[in-house]
This record gives sequence, C-alpha cells and structure tokens, in this order.
Amino acid sequence: MNQSLAIGIDLGGTNTAFGIINADGEILAKGSMPTTGHNSLEEYMLALKGIIGPMMDDFGRDRFVGVGIGAPSGNYFTSEIDFAPNLPWKGVIPFGRLVGESLGLKAILTNDAKAAAIGEMKYGAAKGINSFIMVTLGTGLGSGFMYNGQIIYGHDALAGELGHVIAVRDGRKCNCGLNGCLERYASATGIVITAEIWLDERPDQPTTLREHKGSITAKMITEAANASDTFALELFEYTGKILGQTLASAVAITSPKAIVFFGGLAHAGNLIIDPVRRHMEENLLYVYQNKISLLQSALPDADAAILGASALVW
Amino acid sequence: MNQSLAIGIDLGGTNTAFGIINADGEILAKGSMPTTGHNSLEEYMLALKGIIGPMMDDFGRDRFVGVGIGAPSGNYFTSEIDFAPNLPWKGVIPFGRLVGESLGLKAILTNDAKAAAIGEMKYGAAKGINSFIMVTLGTGLGSGFMYNGQIIYGHDALAGELGHVIAVRDGRKCNCGLNGCLERYASATGIVITAEIWLDERPDQPTTLREHKGSITAKMITEAANASDTFALELFEYTGKILGQTLASAVAITSPKAIVFFGGLAHAGNLIIDPVRRHMEENLLYVYQNKISLLQSALPDADAAILGASALVW
Repeated sequence: MNQSLAIGIDLGGTNTAFGIINADGEILAKGSMPTTGHNSLEEYMLALKGIIGPMMDDFGRDRFVGVGIGAPSGNYFTSEIDFAPNLPWKGVIPFGRLVGESLGLKAILTNDAKAAAIGEMKYGAAKGINSFIMVTLGTGLGSGFMYNGQIIYGHDALAGELGHVIAVRDGRKCNCGLNGCLERYASATGIVITAEIWLDERPDQPTTLREHKGSITAKMITEAANASDTFALELFEYTGKILGQTLASAVAITSPKAIVFFGGLAHAGNLIIDPVRRHMEENLLYVYQNKISLLQSALPDADAAILGASALVW
Repeated sequence: MNQSLAIGIDLGGTNTAFGIINADGEILAKGSMPTTGHNSLEEYMLALKGIIGPMMDDFGRDRFVGVGIGAPSGNYFTSEIDFAPNLPWKGVIPFGRLVGESLGLKAILTNDAKAAAIGEMKYGAAKGINSFIMVTLGTGLGSGFMYNGQIIYGHDALAGELGHVIAVRDGRKCNCGLNGCLERYASATGIVITAEIWLDERPDQPTTLREHKGSITAKMITEAANASDTFALELFEYTGKILGQTLASAVAITSPKAIVFFGGLAHAGNLIIDPVRRHMEENLLYVYQNKISLLQSALPDADAAILGASALVW
C-alpha cells in the first residue's frame, strides 16, 4: 500500500537533518548534510535537493504531500527565517518557499524548537502533556512554549526566544547584539565558552579538559563530568544555575506541567537537569514549587525536530 | 425592559470594588469597601453581602445571572484564592464559593490581573488587540498574558505571576519568601519602598517628599515628579528600568503586540511608561524592537477589573 509521506527538515546551525515520515510518525528514511560550508544559499538549496531528491524518487514522488521545516528564527506565519544569528545567511530568508520550490512540494516552516516541541508532544517525552516548555540546548538555546496543545506564537510568530532573555545583566556579548543572553551560557556553545574562560582564569585547577583547550566540545565536558572531573562538574553547576534561574522566570509567566530538554547539551542528562532543577526551584514562587517535571527528550538526536516538522504537513 | 445583569468584583489588597453590569459592559452601579480591617473572612463576607445585597434588591434579584470575581492569586480552575501574599487571609480560600453562597449567585473567579486583561480587551485600551500583556501596578504587580484572545492560564491556572519573577538577584525580601521579586520594585508599594530607602541613603538630596518620610504614597511621588522634583523623577527612572528589563524577558517569551498598564502607579502615565519603554527596548532582541505599544489603561480605576470579572459571567 502506498501511504502518503511527508518530509521533515531540521535546519541547525551546524547540520541540516531530514527524514521521510509517514502519518503515523514513523521515520522511513533519514539523513543529514552540513548547513555551513556552502558558498551561497542557492548552493545550499542545490545540495539539499541533490540529497533529498533521489530519496523522494526511491519512495515515489507522487506519495509526498509536503515538506515541514524547523528552522532557527523560523516564522510560522511567513515561512521565512528572520535574522537568525547562528545561520550563515543574514537578513530575512524565504527559506520555506525556496525549499518548497526546490523539492516541488508545499512547504510549511516553523521555528526549530517549536517543531521539536510538536514532535515531543506527539511522539516523545511530552506525550499526553499539553502545557510544557521545550528547551533545545544546541548551538544556541531555542524554546517552544506549548499551552493547551498549541504553540504560543505571539502576535507575529516570534514568541519563544528564551535564548535571548537576559540571564546575566551586562554579561557576555551575544551574536544578536545584546549582552548576557541566556544562550551564551546555557547551550552546547555556552558551556564551552565558560570552560575556555575558566581554563584561563584558573591556571592551577587540574582538569582533563585542559589538554583540549581551544577545541573543547560539550561532549568532552560531559565525558569529563561523568569521570568525576571537578572542573567539569562545576561547569554543569554554573550552567544549570543560570538556566534554572531563567526557567523560573519562564515558569512564573506560563506555569507549565513539564520542561523538556533536547539537543547536544541535553545528552548530559542529570548532569545538567539536576542543577537546573535545584536553582529553578529556589527561584520559584511557592505555588509552582515541586510540581514541574524536568524531562530529557525521549527521541534520539534530531528526530523530535524532524518529526515535529513533518507533523506540520498533515 | 429587564436586562440580565452580572456583578463584577475586584478584590484588591486594600479595597474591594464591585459593579452591577449589563451584557453590553455598561456599569449601572458601583461601589467599594475596604478589604482589610475585618476580624475574619466570615465578617468580610457579611460586610460584602451587606453592601451588595441591597443593591441587588434595588435592581431585582431575579435579573442577576452570576458574579464574576477578580482576585489576587485567584485560580480560574478552582475558584479558590491560593496563598495570596497581599491579602489578610492565608492559605487556600474558597473565595468564589463563599461569595456565590453569600449572594445566592453562580460565581466565577479568576486572577485580578487576568480579569483586568479581559476587561481591557473587551472594553478598554486593548480593544482589537488579541495578544498583549496586562500589567497591574497596585499594592503588588499582577499580570495577565493574553494570546489569540485567550488568557494563558498554564496547566493549573497559575500562570502570569510576573510580579514574582526575580528582577534583582539577591534583592529585596518579598512577602512570598523569595528575594528580588519584580513587585518589590515595580508597583505602587515598590516605588514607595525605593523612596523611603533613598531618603535614608541620600540625606542631602533635596526633595519635597522628605517631609512625608514614613508615609509616602505612589501618588505623592507622581505629584512630585510632575512638579519636576529630581528625586521623584529618579525614582521613576529606577522603577521603570527594573520593570522594562523584566518586561523584555516576558516579550521574548510571548511576543505581544502591546503591554497595557493599569492600577495606582500606572496613573503616572508617561512618567513610568517612558523609562519602561527605553529600558525594555534596550534589552529586546532585534526582532521585537520598536513593535510593541505601551498603553495606559483606558478604563478608570477598578473598572477594567470589574468589567473583566463581569465578562466571566456571560
């Protein structure tokens, strides 16, 4: 039987992941390619078409009903990407239209974290939970606020930029131009920045991370912390403190039942979730205390985002 | 012709205001009584019945279809007031049920700021705007987040406690037990606290407010600022800075079209709105900049809240 199919695309700052997905949320095929390293947006589109096109041919082009896209700073109302600080292309990009034309499909685009939130609610850790915050800890920090099963889009589809809430007054310079944005501290990038700064500030503290100075990754920090490296554990405590404090503000505004963590740094699991919980709870009004589940994504890698993106199509 | 009528009650930390309102939002009669000074909740209920009962008799009891209540920490899902820090009664109060029994009417209760948001959207400054933040600057700071014409209640109806977002890390002790809550700075109470602290810290700065030390009100500060008292103007700048910074966080989460200010301190108009705008804009991600209208409530005094509360009935 020839089921209808959708394509789900998760556009990340580093990689573009995609999947061919049926209406039951089964990923029948998937792949990825680098987001960076192309000379232009046109070359990126050609590369994307070059990989996805043959896969569509294999499944049969007429089975495809559309392509759903999750993109940083993606705008659900316009299908454009608006000034994404972590992408190679600047300004307002008609990404949805370009992908749609490239693949010959109807395209629907939303913010990557919102796509992940939809995927997590339909198929992942937030199944059965209809008011929650999705937090993606990748190159940047993305978020999707789900209320009553609907994404809070705001009046212009641009709601949910938790990564650009000022977490540290007069703090680190962000790509967006502000200072102290949450994502400069709490993201795969943010914890690495902290590590590099601390290695300079603390020349005498022993840590296995020192030998990787200049090329540290969030994964290395997680591995060091899992091996009880005190420096790495302190990095998680510090990162979790700033994230927990900021999440307490988000809770006071939206009162979610759960917060779901996703993306590179979320793979650290309780290394990051435990300090987040502690510092969040400390900063919560009593009516919110001890009620909110902090969950790690139940979907592997980019699956939540590509599943959520594909769910936009149906 | 005998129109159906509703009662709208706005329970404040200091006063309880109420109105008799028709389905068109016309206030046919109104009144108020002190919230404090009663020996018990039972005595408060008797006093309320003693004032509203005769008014109901005048209009004809059978015309009343219900009573809507806006209350601090009011819970729309349970009609209870949950641990309101600024009310004389502690713990969980079945306020909706008690008022309903007292007046012999179906009672619907929500948070006071959410009631004001509904009133402002139906009859006030937010008419035609369906995504906005309502901020009430009274004894405390209340808020209601409206998205697509619906209040964001969160999973337990407790969303929208912007007053208890930590605005100043390790800041002033709040009634709620946390430190640095926004409402300890940005409310009629908050600006007075700042004034009293500054009078001690700045013994040499001339200000007409000094003669009222110990019994300053937000109204006095507004009058002094309107008379170009530098101390009072600095108070608005400081208060507006903290409120603007925190509102920037709320904007990044909910992307509203407008923010409507209401309550005692909002009567200061541009004295408070101008510094709020400046500091909010400074802390906004570019996608939100210069797009958000800051509005003063278009409804006099408690009307937004009693109108909004009455709108719950229909």
